[in-house]
Amino acid sequence: LTQLRTIGVIGGMGPAATVDFLQRLVSSLPVSDDRGHPRILVDSNPHVPDRNAALQASGPSPGPALAAMARGLAAQGAELLAMPCNAAHGWADDIRAATPLPFIDMVAATVALARGAGAIGLIAVAATLDARLYHGPLEALGIVVIEPERRAVAELVARVKAGDTGAGARAAATAIAEALAARGADRVIAACTDIPLVLGQGQCPVPLIATSQALADATLAAAAA
Amino acid sequence: LTQLRTIGVIGGMGPAATVDFLQRLVSSLPVSDDRGHPRILVDSNPHVPDRNAALQASGPSPGPALAAMARGLAAQGAELLAMPCNAAHGWADDIRAATPLPFIDMVAATVALARGAGAIGLIAVAATLDARLYHGPLEALGIVVIEPERRAVAELVARVKAGDTGAGARAAATAIAEALAARGADRVIAACTDIPLVLGQGQCPVPLIATSQALADATLAAAAA
Repeated sequence: LTQLRTIGVIGGMGPAATVDFLQRLVSSLPVSDDRGHPRILVDSNPHVPDRNAALQASGPSPGPALAAMARGLAAQGAELLAMPCNAAHGWADDIRAATPLPFIDMVAATVALARGAGAIGLIAVAATLDARLYHGPLEALGIVVIEPERRAVAELVARVKAGDTGAGARAAATAIAEALAARGADRVIAACTDIPLVLGQGQCPVPLIATSQALADATLAAAAA
Repeated sequence: LTQLRTIGVIGGMGPAATVDFLQRLVSSLPVSDDRGHPRILVDSNPHVPDRNAALQASGPSPGPALAAMARGLAAQGAELLAMPCNAAHGWADDIRAATPLPFIDMVAATVALARGAGAIGLIAVAATLDARLYHGPLEALGIVVIEPERRAVAELVARVKAGDTGAGARAAATAIAEALAARGADRVIAACTDIPLVLGQGQCPVPLIATSQALADATLAAAAA
């Protein structure tokens, strides 16, 4: 058995979404004991500048903070990097420039799973939509992108970030997914890592792609390579 | 609002238990948004030498690895340290000697919650029992310690470490707790952080203290102090 490479996680956006991603890293690998797992170094930093404000030019760029986190994880021994926040991928180039480590791109990992879709409902916050992080690669595959009602997504993400993952929040998530399906989406991408905390496949009328699971699978594959 | 101090987590023993501890850190604090959370740095290292083998002098000490992890977390910016593994607390002095940071002791945090008990059933692995990590402080409070059937605990912990937290594992955990209660325990301590993954209060016939929750609460209190 070859030892897996050490994974560095640029996290905290939000903290609960990072724990959900770590849970996926830990539970997506068949293991017989502790030693079957990779070493995982995590920087869960909830003080990274706000991604939505930065994209609207009403706040500082998160790029320098993300680059510093990447360098810190590399100094600790990380051999590859992953970041379970979609909006922050708008500053992925700052991370790539900060260290020579491979950066496992959540957008690319997710888009690879979307091939064959006709129209995708994209549950994402404004920074992800406005930066067209998913629009570009999905449209290049001939896939139509259907945007959600932005206020509904912003309100739901704020609820999750306040620790509310209860029945009301779950119902709101289902309503967003159902509205996208009603408008023609044959798949839904939970393109904000807070969303899978309140939206599972059982609540979604069409196949659901969780970006956090796509990233976990791609990260574990890269750690084994 | 005073910013919380950065928490360093010496983890990976096991990896799933560390994620459970992080989940408790993230969900035990009332927050209104991401920024209400502390920064958390984690070294989830499943390659720390085996604690049971070390205590039986049949394997190397985990002390140097734990000390190195503590130094790495301190270098990254951790301001206090916590370690969600009971057996590894047998080497807590190596961690305390490695950095000047406060080390939040899981045994002390748990024992503080045990005051008033008459007899405690201690679900723990051999290294924790043989080092008498809990026996000493509990007996000093006049509390009788009732040990579990060691083979049953070892088998259950091995199942959890292999990723099995299903109904069979949960039934085995309940059987261990019930046997301790039948022998006179008026409380049970889940003194192995893998145990709460398969034993909740609803499955335990007497009040259950989860060491991972005691440590999460003590760590958050220390981060706010």
